[in-house]
Amino acid sequence: MKVLLVNNRYKENTVEMAQELAHKLATLNITVVMEADNIDQPPDLVIVLGGDGTILRAARQYAYKNSPVLGINMGTVGFLSNIKIEELEQYLHQLLSGDYSLDKRMMLAIDICEDTEIRESFYCLNDVVIRATTPRMVSFNLALDGQIPGTYRGDGLIIASPTGSTAYSLSAGGPVCDPELESFIITPIAPHFINVRPLVVSSRRVLEITPVECQDAIICIDGQIRRNFKPDNSIKVRQAEFKLQLVDLKGTGFFSSLESRLRRIEGM
Amino acid sequence: MKVLLVNNRYKENTVEMAQELAHKLATLNITVVMEADNIDQPPDLVIVLGGDGTILRAARQYAYKNSPVLGINMGTVGFLSNIKIEELEQYLHQLLSGDYSLDKRMMLAIDICEDTEIRESFYCLNDVVIRATTPRMVSFNLALDGQIPGTYRGDGLIIASPTGSTAYSLSAGGPVCDPELESFIITPIAPHFINVRPLVVSSRRVLEITPVECQDAIICIDGQIRRNFKPDNSIKVRQAEFKLQLVDLKGTGFFSSLESRLRRIEGM
Amino acid sequence: MKVLLVNNRYKENTVEMAQELAHKLATLNITVVMEADNIDQPPDLVIVLGGDGTILRAARQYAYKNSPVLGINMGTVGFLSNIKIEELEQYLHQLLSGDYSLDKRMMLAIDICEDTEIRESFYCLNDVVIRATTPRMVSFNLALDGQIPGTYRGDGLIIASPTGSTAYSLSAGGPVCDPELESFIITPIAPHFINVRPLVVSSRRVLEITPVECQDAIICIDGQIRRNFKPDNSIKVRQAEFKLQLVDLKGTGFFSSLESRLRRIEGM
Amino acid sequence: MKVLLVNNRYKENTVEMAQELAHKLATLNITVVMEADNIDQPPDLVIVLGGDGTILRAARQYAYKNSPVLGINMGTVGFLSNIKIEELEQYLHQLLSGDYSLDKRMMLAIDICEDTEIRESFYCLNDVVIRATTPRMVSFNLALDGQIPGTYRGDGLIIASPTGSTAYSLSAGGPVCDPELESFIITPIAPHFINVRPLVVSSRRVLEITPVECQDAIICIDGQIRRNFKPDNSIKVRQAEFKLQLVDLKGTGFFSSLESRLRRIEGM
Repeated sequence: MKVLLVNNRYKENTVEMAQELAHKLATLNITVVMEADNIDQPPDLVIVLGGDGTILRAARQYAYKNSPVLGINMGTVGFLSNIKIEELEQYLHQLLSGDYSLDKRMMLAIDICEDTEIRESFYCLNDVVIRATTPRMVSFNLALDGQIPGTYRGDGLIIASPTGSTAYSLSAGGPVCDPELESFIITPIAPHFINVRPLVVSSRRVLEITPVECQDAIICIDGQIRRNFKPDNSIKVRQAEFKLQLVDLKGTGFFSSLESRLRRIEGM
Repeated sequence: MKVLLVNNRYKENTVEMAQELAHKLATLNITVVMEADNIDQPPDLVIVLGGDGTILRAARQYAYKNSPVLGINMGTVGFLSNIKIEELEQYLHQLLSGDYSLDKRMMLAIDICEDTEIRESFYCLNDVVIRATTPRMVSFNLALDGQIPGTYRGDGLIIASPTGSTAYSLSAGGPVCDPELESFIITPIAPHFINVRPLVVSSRRVLEITPVECQDAIICIDGQIRRNFKPDNSIKVRQAEFKLQLVDLKGTGFFSSLESRLRRIEGM
Repeated sequence: MKVLLVNNRYKENTVEMAQELAHKLATLNITVVMEADNIDQPPDLVIVLGGDGTILRAARQYAYKNSPVLGINMGTVGFLSNIKIEELEQYLHQLLSGDYSLDKRMMLAIDICEDTEIRESFYCLNDVVIRATTPRMVSFNLALDGQIPGTYRGDGLIIASPTGSTAYSLSAGGPVCDPELESFIITPIAPHFINVRPLVVSSRRVLEITPVECQDAIICIDGQIRRNFKPDNSIKVRQAEFKLQLVDLKGTGFFSSLESRLRRIEGM
Repeated sequence: MKVLLVNNRYKENTVEMAQELAHKLATLNITVVMEADNIDQPPDLVIVLGGDGTILRAARQYAYKNSPVLGINMGTVGFLSNIKIEELEQYLHQLLSGDYSLDKRMMLAIDICEDTEIRESFYCLNDVVIRATTPRMVSFNLALDGQIPGTYRGDGLIIASPTGSTAYSLSAGGPVCDPELESFIITPIAPHFINVRPLVVSSRRVLEITPVECQDAIICIDGQIRRNFKPDNSIKVRQAEFKLQLVDLKGTGFFSSLESRLRRIEGM
């Protein structure tokens, strides 16, 4: 069995914990691969030590390998992690024997184009955001399979996956979305026309965002990757052809824990 | 070819127009059935003369027959109709030769139960609403496939289909939803806990609403059918096994006309 | 010194506590008046034992006497009470020696008219609501000093005082309002036209609500008094000429405790 | 009589119109002052040719002189202008004979402090905004007369006057506010904690905003003046000691024209 360990290299406690865990797994005759290593074969399991930010990064980097991913919360609030570090001991046997269900989460595939050519492509779990960097409004057209549901004008626009619906999109007024519903949640940020509302569309569609007036705007992917949004750019969003396979050791349903999770995001 | 004509019996102009149209179709050797008639075989086409209210009623009564349904707008604002009465002449040949696409809309199947037994069942196109009739708050639990995402407390709750997402649910703060996305939109009305948000869930799930404190509440289906919601009642909502087949003569996509439709519902 | 004791006659524990407190105050040579008694002179202090509902009622009945009012919370969550019953002993001396500040809250004066004649008049602390009792929309005009800012269409309308801004109005999407700002908060409930927004206006203005289409609507005052809203009714709302004088023994400002209060109303 | 003419120097048509109008007024023996001129005495009238942006700038520069200000709309949509350029001829006599009412609008006085010292001060008519320039959330404390109603976390915060309540604040979810109500409208932009709501407070209070985590944030005044918001900055907002005196030639009340104005801002 081969396990890939991922940690937040900027948080020392996750680095130490990764080394400790690597040591422990080695004594159980498990091959441990650290992130820096070359990974040619998909690991049997990816263990992520850290908060949601580290899991988002791991999802972008390793989800396409279709390996199960377990998020272990190291103290900060976590929406995507399944167990806390204190619980690892208790769940280790169950984890290594594969006795868990998989919570599959759709991901977004994003192409940043220049004129009509693709310049860069990304996968992400939560959302892609186009946002003004100055207080001037930006505006762009959104096309869904070629149909144009109108021009968005305001601070910007969020295209979220169901997983991302409880993140930035929720703050901007979007609905909470069932992770089993393959969809994009399109939420305007401070829209100039106050009758413009969040829109939930089938992720079988292809979204395309083209600028109308976007002098100073950026594209932001999962809150972690940033690119300038230039006037000759356009962005295509599709559903990724694979899903993130989150390990669920506890079998709590999404909705049963929703209330406590939302309370958590209110810092209470 | 057999055509069923549906009109709003309370609006004389739709009654007259139905007679006029019946006469015209008869001259074209088309068998015309009026609503009062006994319909044992599904008609080849259902033509509805009137506003959205008349189409909602026709959908509840005839959608299960899987016949194409054309809504003809007789003057009032229409979200579900495809052409205006003035356009009928122009589109009649196209209509009768079957030269149109079908815009398929999911419907809701609703069971009103007493204890655990089903007392009444309904199909509907837009929404089922549980609402207080007095200014006292009502509260109930909502279960999704048995998982309970929390207790709703306030004026009431709307369970809408994507088609219903632009009706009452929108007024209560819900998102606009793609008709191609098989989903329920669950929108609280004036929720007591202000962090309770609209929820969009897969319509593969079964919803069950059970009362917590519901002295004076009613169940309302498509705004047209009303039942008291008694303390031993519960409501189950599933996706209906058939879809409404709306005739689309113009080929305008849902999103392309969304902006003008929403403007319309703002009475502008 | 004369103290009026008010309790919730439907909650036995508040009845008992009132008797116990009456006995105690009598031993301190304080004249105690119970609610059933005839009160010709304004008391020096009104003590309300119970939740917000009991304080709302006491405000409507006794605020015009300009006596200081202390709300004592008997267990349920309270927005208007200042101390809990367990704290009474600790604060009793301070209370009886008048060592407190007064938190003055504007009240609403409401006239229900028939044609142009006043039929009934009420004072209230929180809000007056006009609301549909059936799922059919109601519509009416709102005039501000004779200017008509448009027709409201939907489930209904809330006219709240700043004190009422954290009650029903908040659930319907209204802002939180400073108790020191003499204003009316006008919040539509599930408005049909989604660009209709909450409106905050100076309480120097006189509001008048006249029905457009209001078959089945009621008027509800502080959630406690109900009247049918008939087609020949109209409602006038003004600021009352007196204020509720809430006793503030603790000197906590409105805003400092706002966060915990709002958390409280979220049931957390 | 002395008239100050203000125009948008970047829009040639307003420059030309100013010259034409200056010429015309000169023939009527009126002293015309152009903006570049030295103005030691308050003019009897300020005429602003251009859109809302030009009026916002004129308000910041000349409102303290207490001269009446007339906004003349040169084509773009205007919320603050009173007449269109085509109507000038018709209203000129009425204007010059002073036959109009004054619509007085409160303004904001803003101090940008470093540690505790004031570094820069501004007046503005609409709003002051603190906003993140990157997709990272910013957070700060807001104190009202020293009371802290909690920490704001999200994209930013808008402090608007009643006049500004129909601008950016409305897009971010704030209420519309009566220009006669002396108040600040505090509207969070995409707040992280979804139970944080717009707040309307008396403008007799002094607001102070201090950073908690504000790496990349800017201060923006009326959408026109920008400053970086550094970690040792704080911002104080008070009501200005003077008001903008808008000339109202037509006598239409704020509320009577509200519906059409809001429709206008929806671009319809």
